[in-house]
Amino acid sequence: MKAPTAPRARKAAASVPAGEPRYAIGVDFGTNSVRALVVDIRDGREVAVSVFGYPTGEDGVILDPSDPALARQSPADYIDGFLHTVREAVKSASSADPFFAPEAVVGIGVDTTGSTPIPVVRDGTPLAFLPEFHDNPAAQAWLWKDHTSAAEAAEITAAARAQGVPYLGRCGGSYSSEWFWAKVLHCKRTATAVFDAAYSWVELCDFIPAYAAGCLDPIRMKRSVCAAGHKAMFAVDWGGLPSAEFLASIDPELARLRYRLYSEALPSDHLAGHLCPEVAKKVGLPPGIAIAVGAFDCHHGAVGAGIKPGTLVKVVGTSSCDLFVAPRGATLSNVPGVCGVVMGSVIPGVYALEAGQSAVGDILKWYVDRLCPAPYAGDNPYAALEADAARLRPGESGLLALDWNNGNRTILNNQNLTGLLLGQTLYTTGPEIYRALVEATAFGARAIQERTAEYGVATKDIVLCGGLAEKSPLLCQIYADVLNCPIRISRSAQTCALGAALFGAVASGAHKNVAIAQRAMTGVRDVVYKPVRESVRTYARLYALYRRLHDAFGTPDAAPAAFGDLMPELIAIRQEVRHAAR
Amino acid sequence: MKAPTAPRARKAAASVPAGEPRYAIGVDFGTNSVRALVVDIRDGREVAVSVFGYPTGEDGVILDPSDPALARQSPADYIDGFLHTVREAVKSASSADPFFAPEAVVGIGVDTTGSTPIPVVRDGTPLAFLPEFHDNPAAQAWLWKDHTSAAEAAEITAAARAQGVPYLGRCGGSYSSEWFWAKVLHCKRTATAVFDAAYSWVELCDFIPAYAAGCLDPIRMKRSVCAAGHKAMFAVDWGGLPSAEFLASIDPELARLRYRLYSEALPSDHLAGHLCPEVAKKVGLPPGIAIAVGAFDCHHGAVGAGIKPGTLVKVVGTSSCDLFVAPRGATLSNVPGVCGVVMGSVIPGVYALEAGQSAVGDILKWYVDRLCPAPYAGDNPYAALEADAARLRPGESGLLALDWNNGNRTILNNQNLTGLLLGQTLYTTGPEIYRALVEATAFGARAIQERTAEYGVATKDIVLCGGLAEKSPLLCQIYADVLNCPIRISRSAQTCALGAALFGAVASGAHKNVAIAQRAMTGVRDVVYKPVRESVRTYARLYALYRRLHDAFGTPDAAPAAFGDLMPELIAIRQEVRHAAR
Repeated sequence: MKAPTAPRARKAAASVPAGEPRYAIGVDFGTNSVRALVVDIRDGREVAVSVFGYPTGEDGVILDPSDPALARQSPADYIDGFLHTVREAVKSASSADPFFAPEAVVGIGVDTTGSTPIPVVRDGTPLAFLPEFHDNPAAQAWLWKDHTSAAEAAEITAAARAQGVPYLGRCGGSYSSEWFWAKVLHCKRTATAVFDAAYSWVELCDFIPAYAAGCLDPIRMKRSVCAAGHKAMFAVDWGGLPSAEFLASIDPELARLRYRLYSEALPSDHLAGHLCPEVAKKVGLPPGIAIAVGAFDCHHGAVGAGIKPGTLVKVVGTSSCDLFVAPRGATLSNVPGVCGVVMGSVIPGVYALEAGQSAVGDILKWYVDRLCPAPYAGDNPYAALEADAARLRPGESGLLALDWNNGNRTILNNQNLTGLLLGQTLYTTGPEIYRALVEATAFGARAIQERTAEYGVATKDIVLCGGLAEKSPLLCQIYADVLNCPIRISRSAQTCALGAALFGAVASGAHKNVAIAQRAMTGVRDVVYKPVRESVRTYARLYALYRRLHDAFGTPDAAPAAFGDLMPELIAIRQEVRHAAR
Repeated sequence: MKAPTAPRARKAAASVPAGEPRYAIGVDFGTNSVRALVVDIRDGREVAVSVFGYPTGEDGVILDPSDPALARQSPADYIDGFLHTVREAVKSASSADPFFAPEAVVGIGVDTTGSTPIPVVRDGTPLAFLPEFHDNPAAQAWLWKDHTSAAEAAEITAAARAQGVPYLGRCGGSYSSEWFWAKVLHCKRTATAVFDAAYSWVELCDFIPAYAAGCLDPIRMKRSVCAAGHKAMFAVDWGGLPSAEFLASIDPELARLRYRLYSEALPSDHLAGHLCPEVAKKVGLPPGIAIAVGAFDCHHGAVGAGIKPGTLVKVVGTSSCDLFVAPRGATLSNVPGVCGVVMGSVIPGVYALEAGQSAVGDILKWYVDRLCPAPYAGDNPYAALEADAARLRPGESGLLALDWNNGNRTILNNQNLTGLLLGQTLYTTGPEIYRALVEATAFGARAIQERTAEYGVATKDIVLCGGLAEKSPLLCQIYADVLNCPIRISRSAQTCALGAALFGAVASGAHKNVAIAQRAMTGVRDVVYKPVRESVRTYARLYALYRRLHDAFGTPDAAPAAFGDLMPELIAIRQEVRHAAR
């Protein structure tokens, strides 16, 4: 396979005049903390960073001991986090870079988790800021991973299917409890006072740019097409948000709310506004700096990692987020099981596909935190397990696992699943299991890629980013072998914030468009993980077995399948691999 | 369920005159060591014991680093072990019991592993005793767990099936590489010099009694029906050993060997002979003591644990050996998948069924030795894991496992299988997995019991013996709940040696028959593990899921089956159990 050429940083300097340093700031709101990154827009150089952990709740998340599905966040933490990190990053940049000056900042971009909707009053003030709602969990931000709305999500899915409306057509065919309408409906059903007091609901990724621009008015603020399209069933094709008629069929209040939301949603190369004097003063920047329309973290992360048609960007951390963009001009309809197909949510003007695995690093973390065999449980159990796991050849352990400890987001859309490990003997070791779990996540990734390829979005090239891409060469090599595709690693370790800064630069006009900005600001590292032919062949056989388990165990109505040959086949592979190695 | 009454020791004293102490010695040849036990035949009191580890090889087993299937043993070790342990046990008994005297020993019984055949010359001397064969692995005893003869076993199975002969009818329908003819044939094929030099082949359980009786002549020595029936396809119904014609169809040399073996095989209430003066002198006993015909360890163990019709004896150690006896007068034909159905192999005059699981304690040992999570890996990891596992309710973990890490002996007869664990989440713990593994072995035990019950051998009562019965109350309770049957524990911790001693007493005539001897010498402890209704119900649901996996994964030609509901069902059980516990 010919190694694709990816943009490298050193080519980039030409696209922006070298003598005129300009900067953008990317602000990335994660699940537990927010970070601001100051970036030189000529070459992507990361000048300064500041991180702020949300002070409220456990690790920044408001929990309910009686309901593990609940996960909320204090909107005040977001504002405090924005002000703190931008101010500190600006200060650090001033001392770290002699050419930096607040006046040289051209734009600010913002990415956040999502769907993380916040109920607000008419002027956009979060309900949680009012004394009577201050401690009401329903009045806070409903964090993306809040799963209290499972029943409402099922209800929305059923209604859409029953009515034959197209609204599930871009979100994989079923609605999720993590998404906007399910959360709002659950609030209406279970916390009526909050619902009634809320004039509108605002996604976190819209709230922060609006706050920075000094206009929180929910009707006038700019809304992100990434949030709207992926989570609120918004698409221009069907006239924006789902019809009032459809919403009313679920609950008349939803139909009424529709008119207090939005009818337009924009990609992040658009301006959300300009930094208002009041916020500018608080963060030590001049007013008037361009603020880009927000988006979700992985989407900006994909841009920060250099996504383009043919290049899959996988953000591999606790879970994975996989982003693909279709060729310009290509129209994508629904891709079954793929959670989101949205025009402009990553790169303006092209369709983006978002897929993901419910757990990747979380599975390894589970194994290490809870099950790590004693001899490996030293200072760095990951490194110890990985060192021995890396000595194994593909297929040599005879193990095969499913990566469903936290359910399966893509392509099965089924959280009612669990992990599976088979092939154990009386000699199976901890590193063998660790490796089997890594392989399982790679097989899960392959199932996603096969699905998107079937629907016309082929992968020629993969860029990994996120914690595991940094930390696990073993994982990177296994992914190259299982996916049979060279794997590169994003140069930046904070691609989401970098992508946000990039959109700040584009929205300001300092870079003409995303592709030009990417050539200047993003890149990959020198290391390339190339598929090894022998491993590719073995993994193809193992994947065929994985896929049979996947298909048979993965959906309630799965067809009957024969498994009598599966364990013998794994043993045969094991023996062949061991024999070949002699 | 009414708790059945089992014989207790305190009732026993009446059956032998109290004033006349008499003793028997049971000699039990295990895989790594041999033990001799001196027993008071009036009440089963264990007076003295002596253990001897085989000195040759690793833990007494001769291995081949280039072939993990090979497992041999030095015949000299057996003789040394017999002499050493009997002599030491007699000495210890003399000092431990003022009433003991060598002259008060009425009989000696012997049990051994098997099939463990030894090639011998015309006078019965093991070939390994000759200088030219001393170091030849093929000239040693072929230990039961030697698996070098897999191809030959398959060939024998195929020949028997093709010719429509009944010889597989008492061994579950397929011949095993662990058994007599396969081993002999493999020797003929791969070590011709040994095969040619061997006049005959003698099972270890026949060799030791013959040695003690001073007549090793392979034609004249008494042969055990237990070894012959279970391992050499011997049955009176079809005229003893398989026909010369059948054997010749596999290899003419086997047919010729047939006439240098035996035409009669006896249960252990028969005399193998009397202690000869030469051996008597070496062990410090008077000559002339009755020597019982030998048998396999678990068979004597079952008798030592009080087996009778309706009582299943499970010897639960590294693997399990399950023994059932049919009601007197009942005729049993083949029970599919059950390795052995042999007249008189346990109790003279009744059919016995032998079944077993390839790994029980070995699976737990594997988990503890190789995978034990760090917090549990202290001085006693078993106790630490068991303590936390015992706090869990059935079904609460959501886990389900198959107990096939070492294949499945009964009822699948398939070594080409491996373990399986499913139901893992990101919160699954070590004790949950430990418990799931114990439960898996219980489900495996249930599959065996259901099969024997279908063929007319019902279980009313279970006696556990072996290491795990002693050490794991958790395992005993789980077995009671999964098997829905009260579980008792054998009073003796060394039931095999006790059973051997019992047969020494019966063969000597000191006890009239096995049932009378059992009433006198065997018994159970006071503890009874009773099924708990709620647990029985949950385990019935889990077993149904286990059985679906078992049937689908367990044979190469298994029918297709649907599994889409399996993980959701486990999750549902988990939720119900957790909810009920609130």
